[in-house]
Amino acid sequence: MAKTPQKIQIIPLGGMGEIGKNMTVVRYGEDIIVIDSGLMFPEDDMLGIDLVIPDISYLIENREFIKGIFLTHGHEDHIGALPYVLKELCVPVYGTRLTLGILESRLKENGVSLDNLIPIQPGDHITAGAMKVGFIRVSHSIADSVAIYVQTPVGTIVHTGDFKLDQTPVDGKVTQYAKLAELGERGVLVLLADSTNAERPGYTPSEKTVGVTFDETFRNARGRIIVATFSSNIHRIQQAIDTATKYRRKVAILGRSMVNVVNIAMELGYLKVADGTLIDVEEINNYPASSIVIMTTGSQGEPMSALTRMAMSDHRQVEISPSDTVIISATPIPGNEKLVHRTIDYLFRQGAEVIYEAASEIHVSGHASREELKLMHNLIRPKFFVPVHGEFRHLVKHAKLAQETGIPKENIFVVENGQVLEFTPDKGCVAGKVTAGPVLVDGLGVGDVGNIVLRDRRQLSQDGILIVVMTIDKQRGCLIAGPDLVSRGFVYVRESEMLMEEIKDKVRQVLEKCEANGITEWAFIKSSVRDVLGKHLYEKTRRRPMILPIIMEV
Amino acid sequence: MAKTPQKIQIIPLGGMGEIGKNMTVVRYGEDIIVIDSGLMFPEDDMLGIDLVIPDISYLIENREFIKGIFLTHGHEDHIGALPYVLKELCVPVYGTRLTLGILESRLKENGVSLDNLIPIQPGDHITAGAMKVGFIRVSHSIADSVAIYVQTPVGTIVHTGDFKLDQTPVDGKVTQYAKLAELGERGVLVLLADSTNAERPGYTPSEKTVGVTFDETFRNARGRIIVATFSSNIHRIQQAIDTATKYRRKVAILGRSMVNVVNIAMELGYLKVADGTLIDVEEINNYPASSIVIMTTGSQGEPMSALTRMAMSDHRQVEISPSDTVIISATPIPGNEKLVHRTIDYLFRQGAEVIYEAASEIHVSGHASREELKLMHNLIRPKFFVPVHGEFRHLVKHAKLAQETGIPKENIFVVENGQVLEFTPDKGCVAGKVTAGPVLVDGLGVGDVGNIVLRDRRQLSQDGILIVVMTIDKQRGCLIAGPDLVSRGFVYVRESEMLMEEIKDKVRQVLEKCEANGITEWAFIKSSVRDVLGKHLYEKTRRRPMILPIIMEV
Repeated sequence: MAKTPQKIQIIPLGGMGEIGKNMTVVRYGEDIIVIDSGLMFPEDDMLGIDLVIPDISYLIENREFIKGIFLTHGHEDHIGALPYVLKELCVPVYGTRLTLGILESRLKENGVSLDNLIPIQPGDHITAGAMKVGFIRVSHSIADSVAIYVQTPVGTIVHTGDFKLDQTPVDGKVTQYAKLAELGERGVLVLLADSTNAERPGYTPSEKTVGVTFDETFRNARGRIIVATFSSNIHRIQQAIDTATKYRRKVAILGRSMVNVVNIAMELGYLKVADGTLIDVEEINNYPASSIVIMTTGSQGEPMSALTRMAMSDHRQVEISPSDTVIISATPIPGNEKLVHRTIDYLFRQGAEVIYEAASEIHVSGHASREELKLMHNLIRPKFFVPVHGEFRHLVKHAKLAQETGIPKENIFVVENGQVLEFTPDKGCVAGKVTAGPVLVDGLGVGDVGNIVLRDRRQLSQDGILIVVMTIDKQRGCLIAGPDLVSRGFVYVRESEMLMEEIKDKVRQVLEKCEANGITEWAFIKSSVRDVLGKHLYEKTRRRPMILPIIMEV
Repeated sequence: MAKTPQKIQIIPLGGMGEIGKNMTVVRYGEDIIVIDSGLMFPEDDMLGIDLVIPDISYLIENREFIKGIFLTHGHEDHIGALPYVLKELCVPVYGTRLTLGILESRLKENGVSLDNLIPIQPGDHITAGAMKVGFIRVSHSIADSVAIYVQTPVGTIVHTGDFKLDQTPVDGKVTQYAKLAELGERGVLVLLADSTNAERPGYTPSEKTVGVTFDETFRNARGRIIVATFSSNIHRIQQAIDTATKYRRKVAILGRSMVNVVNIAMELGYLKVADGTLIDVEEINNYPASSIVIMTTGSQGEPMSALTRMAMSDHRQVEISPSDTVIISATPIPGNEKLVHRTIDYLFRQGAEVIYEAASEIHVSGHASREELKLMHNLIRPKFFVPVHGEFRHLVKHAKLAQETGIPKENIFVVENGQVLEFTPDKGCVAGKVTAGPVLVDGLGVGDVGNIVLRDRRQLSQDGILIVVMTIDKQRGCLIAGPDLVSRGFVYVRESEMLMEEIKDKVRQVLEKCEANGITEWAFIKSSVRDVLGKHLYEKTRRRPMILPIIMEV
């Protein structure tokens, strides 16, 4: 009989040093569980990439040991990689009903089977080999969020998932403090906790504070009200609908993902809407402006979203009028600032009143601020701590906060994706590294766009391309057609005739010189053309287009 | 004799609905003056563009009337277009000594003559035809800033430039409240005022509050201190140097623009440094770490800057060590957030302590917040108001603030670049439009990159390019070489051999079909190739590379 191993491993495959693609592996002997499986939106320099998912080579290599994937909540950065992961791995997926509801529609879109989805609820326990997995209700900006704890023969691990400690949540379902405290009392070996707001002092305000601003805005608005928010923020949508009902307004839901999530949430009972409140967007003109609320997507200024189209006067059904009040109930996700601001500016240009975060209390975060994090640490009182879910500076700030709550520095591990953390009841260490990193998804290609393709896209994006085609006689080695030039994204060719003639002359000179010297290797001719033109073009334009000499032989 | 006109025109050529390229024209009859001449950094979708300047067609058409360009201060968004503008216009340029000092180095770099620069100081008056121009000292995040007033036969115009009302400025030179009040008492026709912080409630803290944070940080740091800030913020640099002196540290200046501005400011007496304080960066290793401060550029995470190179372990002279304290004394300019955060993360990865805005009071704005704006309005008490220098939402917020201070709505004008505002002593209106807009500078090309080139760059950046070269026999119309394929930024070709073969087959099919039908027009053949391949590639990859068929005839 094999000896019971006295250690567990924790391996983050995503979410370390980044906001997104959260994925954490817990391994005890030959039992593996996975917590979350998220995507990330591409960085600015990942040109043309649609989304980024974690590298799951480690999971594929160890597929026979995986007992299940356990989800904390239904945000894209926690479930968005599953349409890809489940094509590789056939394992059970556990999540709360709303989480699975949202996941189902993503899987259907991608033609992935729903057979392995297993609903759980706070209080349930799932046996995963020698481990036992439990769920604890927490507050977050999406309903039905849970923290996950894993009981192993070595000790208990708690993973908070994304959370805040909202003392007055919209649905009244408060974080299960007693359960957290009970785990803490019994002894927790390792805590992994959300670091998103580790920079932010104090407490994150309750979701209900947004309801107060809704009330004030709805009370004073005379025309239509258009509310843009994250489609997954059921509680925000609930508050907007409740306020609409209070002020006797009808609500139209707009935007594919908003319609989708609202339907799921209503079906599952997470969103409560009085009969007769919802109307179809086609009906809005049947009511006076003062009786209408439009709930829509586009709070991130996404170019194709409903709100952005309205702002640009490009929406088929809704035209902005100066009596409209537009509420953007969201904060720009880092990187989206300019898009959001552009939307706000265009709405103002159309004369609408715009309520947005920089100027009003119209959004609260879904993540715990520093005082809440400290409370979490004091409830759990873990022996070891691993900050997760944050850019590197957030992890560092969270590590320092943990020290302040009394965890010794040597028991805190700030690690990168792929590093293997190993814990015994007494000791923790970094014990190696597995394959980890971003896998880029571009259209149907998963992982086929790498550094070379991206480097080319970057060069093309900066100064375009100049193609030089020459047809050369195979026997005699001399030019018989061309050089022909084709350029894109470099200069406006119609106004650059002189430059183009200069380029042709330069090419002819290179070819003549090669011919005179008896040089016939294509590679040499091509690189000479590239060098001579590169220098000439930089001198004349200070630009460095990609230069592509093509030789056709006949 | 010509009748004295009873109206003045104000025409913004930049700075409306945008942060950057500030430029305002004031015209009385046949006298024109220009206030500021700034550049803007390119928007995200302006791929490969270096900078953006205002379209000055109007000024070129009216060049004989221009009496001068008057500068409010030395920031790029107020003086950065002059190297280009002064190549087109030969007119006097008025500015304070520091403003001209910074401008001179920019002009020299671009080979533009310095002959037309005329230094002024607060209190001076310049006659510009029938107008008289005066200067009022204001506080801002660069020393030697002025507001400008223009006395015309129709009335007085006040342009605040960029300002804040710092009651305890570092150099003790307080905004000239008395002069502003005096103008207000005598009657101001039009106020144009900085709208950058029109969203921000309360007062902007004094620059001196940053000095307090410097003191605390310097007092506690045991190793080297590295301070990154805007090179133009002389007062910030002064405070860092003063604090260094207090704690007996030597200061090394790093980064071309920082060295440049520090030299100019010291020469002109705007920066006071005790003898023996400054050392060369080559000397830093001759001193203990606890005796060193390095002042550097890179507070915006600019990829080539000194700080970014240090963070990436790519700096020739300075290597980050875990005992270093790095102070990033700046806020990310919108759009730079990700770059700044990346720099911070890499500094933390190297073990340094990093003090940055999100977590400390280490930066204050240079622009007036709402209560300061109200005070400015109440000092000037203009008849008409035009918010300037801001994105559209800032202009709208500033307009509403002006209404709160008592200016009637119909006397407030929120306009776009190029709109002509016309004022009589009693009435204001929009009276037309002149050419205005962004002129893109790419390398040596000014204005030659337009929509077509940008559209191509965008397409290339997303999915790359596929080039199909075919050599066709002129007489027989049949393919004699190729199709050859070259692709860049589309797929990794070595792993896409099958796709490439499919493409070649598709091309051959198109050519055969054309040949069979006797079609020989190149244009038709090319567009058939493009259509067939476009459809096929989208089906197979969900990508839309630029497809470039090239036919060579021999």
